[in-house]
Amino acid sequence: MIRVTRKYRFSASHRLHAPQLGDAENRALYGKCNYPFGHGHNYEIAVSVRGVPDSRSGRVVDIDLLDGLVRGQLLAAFEHRNLNEEVEAFRAAVPTSENLGREAVRLLKQSWHSVFPPDGPCLEAVAIAETPRNAFEVSADEIQ
Amino acid sequence: MIRVTRKYRFSASHRLHAPQLGDAENRALYGKCNYPFGHGHNYEIAVSVRGVPDSRSGRVVDIDLLDGLVRGQLLAAFEHRNLNEEVEAFRAAVPTSENLGREAVRLLKQSWHSVFPPDGPCLEAVAIAETPRNAFEVSADEIQ
Amino acid sequence: MIRVTRKYRFSASHRLHAPQLGDAENRALYGKCNYPFGHGHNYEIAVSVRGVPDSRSGRVVDIDLLDGLVRGQLLAAFEHRNLNEEVEAFRAAVPTSENLGREAVRLLKQSWHSVFPPDGPCLEAVAIAETPRNAFEVSADEIQ
Amino acid sequence: MIRVTRKYRFSASHRLHAPQLGDAENRALYGKCNYPFGHGHNYEIAVSVRGVPDSRSGRVVDIDLLDGLVRGQLLAAFEHRNLNEEVEAFRAAVPTSENLGREAVRLLKQSWHSVFPPDGPCLEAVAIAETPRNAFEVSADEIQ
Amino acid sequence: MIRVTRKYRFSASHRLHAPQLGDAENRALYGKCNYPFGHGHNYEIAVSVRGVPDSRSGRVVDIDLLDGLVRGQLLAAFEHRNLNEEVEAFRAAVPTSENLGREAVRLLKQSWHSVFPPDGPCLEAVAIAETPRNAFEVSADEIQ
Amino acid sequence: MIRVTRKYRFSASHRLHAPQLGDAENRALYGKCNYPFGHGHNYEIAVSVRGVPDSRSGRVVDIDLLDGLVRGQLLAAFEHRNLNEEVEAFRAAVPTSENLGREAVRLLKQSWHSVFPPDGPCLEAVAIAETPRNAFEVSADEIQ
Repeated sequence: MIRVTRKYRFSASHRLHAPQLGDAENRALYGKCNYPFGHGHNYEIAVSVRGVPDSRSGRVVDIDLLDGLVRGQLLAAFEHRNLNEEVEAFRAAVPTSENLGREAVRLLKQSWHSVFPPDGPCLEAVAIAETPRNAFEVSADEIQ
Repeated sequence: MIRVTRKYRFSASHRLHAPQLGDAENRALYGKCNYPFGHGHNYEIAVSVRGVPDSRSGRVVDIDLLDGLVRGQLLAAFEHRNLNEEVEAFRAAVPTSENLGREAVRLLKQSWHSVFPPDGPCLEAVAIAETPRNAFEVSADEIQ
Repeated sequence: MIRVTRKYRFSASHRLHAPQLGDAENRALYGKCNYPFGHGHNYEIAVSVRGVPDSRSGRVVDIDLLDGLVRGQLLAAFEHRNLNEEVEAFRAAVPTSENLGREAVRLLKQSWHSVFPPDGPCLEAVAIAETPRNAFEVSADEIQ
Repeated sequence: MIRVTRKYRFSASHRLHAPQLGDAENRALYGKCNYPFGHGHNYEIAVSVRGVPDSRSGRVVDIDLLDGLVRGQLLAAFEHRNLNEEVEAFRAAVPTSENLGREAVRLLKQSWHSVFPPDGPCLEAVAIAETPRNAFEVSADEIQ
Repeated sequence: MIRVTRKYRFSASHRLHAPQLGDAENRALYGKCNYPFGHGHNYEIAVSVRGVPDSRSGRVVDIDLLDGLVRGQLLAAFEHRNLNEEVEAFRAAVPTSENLGREAVRLLKQSWHSVFPPDGPCLEAVAIAETPRNAFEVSADEIQ
Repeated sequence: MIRVTRKYRFSASHRLHAPQLGDAENRALYGKCNYPFGHGHNYEIAVSVRGVPDSRSGRVVDIDLLDGLVRGQLLAAFEHRNLNEEVEAFRAAVPTSENLGREAVRLLKQSWHSVFPPDGPCLEAVAIAETPRNAFEVSADEIQ
């Protein structure tokens, strides 16, 4: 088994605000990430795939297929979007990087087998970097 | 004369939309940067200063003073803000990186001599990187 | 469980010299790292934490609390210091990156539960990069 | 046990072309990587080693020994070479990053114990980055 | 006037060999870059443009137009190509980064005014980075 | 004329302390950089050369000659050294990055024409980066 990791970038805005909590509690919890008009980031998303290289092609995963899946499922949904306003999942959940990583895993798993065969490469993890200082890694088996 | 460049980072959101133009023209002009709910970036701002090293200290600029000025004038205004909604200058001008760089130069020049003496270091340029692929450099003498 | 990694930087000096060994053996073992007056690095320290996102906040760890702990326990001890002369642990042990990583884990574990509750996030690992070419990763369970 | 990772760089050219497949199939499979005259990359190779720090030296691995092994076994074979034409292993296998990683593990394991003692550090994994966007990680125990 | 710099990447192979010189002289001159089967790089190309921001759009240059020009004129010619065999200009000139930069300037200037108006942004310079350690910058006025 | 910039790295320690000033003044001036036992950095030094490509070789500068000069004159003096204690120039001057850049220019100019002919490439500037956030650029004509 070999692990292949490929990185993608997108830019988006968000605001951290938990609707169950009051304004003062939100400000204490999220600090400047709770400012009312939102802010944004250049996100880097690293998708890790695990598999056995095909004996003829010498590759674990067809990169064009993976790129197509990530572009169609993730980048089309997140690129230059306001995550709170324009991504369905973040009506219910706060768009932290932890929740963004879980949503990315969910979206990829949902369409994985429309692209890759059952004995093909499997999704191992997704890591979200909100800034170059931070990374949030979600294993694929965290999400059903 | 030696040139000293120091980098700072902040995250903010913006939307590119020129109020004098119609919606269709805005979409054609700015593409995904015109999506109605805005998006955001991790900005890097590089401030370049020029001067002669002080003969005793061996330094062109006191970095603590420069940091204080940049934090007080730029980062306090931009960090985790929605540039369109929360920065006065972008009520009149579209918050492109070009205009953001000009506003940064204007803000630094306005307070420069409250911090540095007339024979001290001078501001040479400000460069804004919206993403690692792009940089927008404004000379200090562009702005009066 | 989600893994969150956050990076910090500090600059320090050190000299690799094992007191139990003679001068010639030290020179053969450590080469230029044994030069008598020491040298220094910009260190990057990556702290990895593992936990379950809180259902309300959507976060694994309160970043402000983590920053406070790392600043108070690690950066306050190492930043702009001579590790051999000014850090107690390196009176007995050579300040290699391996030992620096173990000391960082020890210091973080010692104060962890003064900041995080027993059912909160746990420390998983610390990785020290002495230069961009090297990384030394110590699991938290290496150190009692 | 501590994990030490050290990075090396080399530049080489290759062409992805599976000899068992026809020209049209190769073009469909590898796209621009199948262009007939080949192309090239600046590769980054990260070698991960695991071990217990020596109680006197405080080090898991003697970096000079590791550098000598990697230079002699890997860089001497790959640096500024055409992988298809000048590396024996790629007469039989397509020089994908997956196969390059496996060949790197094979070459390092073959000479490991001419340099490191049986109770010394062990090779854990090799990761090949063809570009900054991609990484291919091969565990040492993948290869006999 | 504001300077905008945008970076692009491509991978290609080349061999440094001056046809007017003998084999021994070529080896002495270019070292490992003269190995007979060629080698390759991930090139980064930074295109710098200078101009006055448009008063309505707030932009110096329409990035989509610039991207289209660079893709059509440069990346289509160089991406995944063997520069010696597949780029006309390098039949006569050795494909050093210096000559590659000059060819890039020549190609961009040749098509510049099919895309940008006479009073629009002008090309200032092209910088080629063969590896992260090297950059070769050619001013646009070097080439007629 | 084409500008070629090549980067080198070295690690060293220093302490900022101006002997003409008292201890309190030094502490106020240099802050943590004045701690008595010194600290250190991974320095990056970028050497910029300007010239006309040779018509046969297609190169502005022979990189092996430049590397030899930088290694022999700069890296041999600075690598893994304590700049205050082991570099002659810093007995008289504080080892700020400004002064380190001037010393680097002086050392390179002093030996330049033992390596490069009068009509060959000329040294344009040296830039010292103490950390990834800072750069100090000294023009070659600053130093006689």
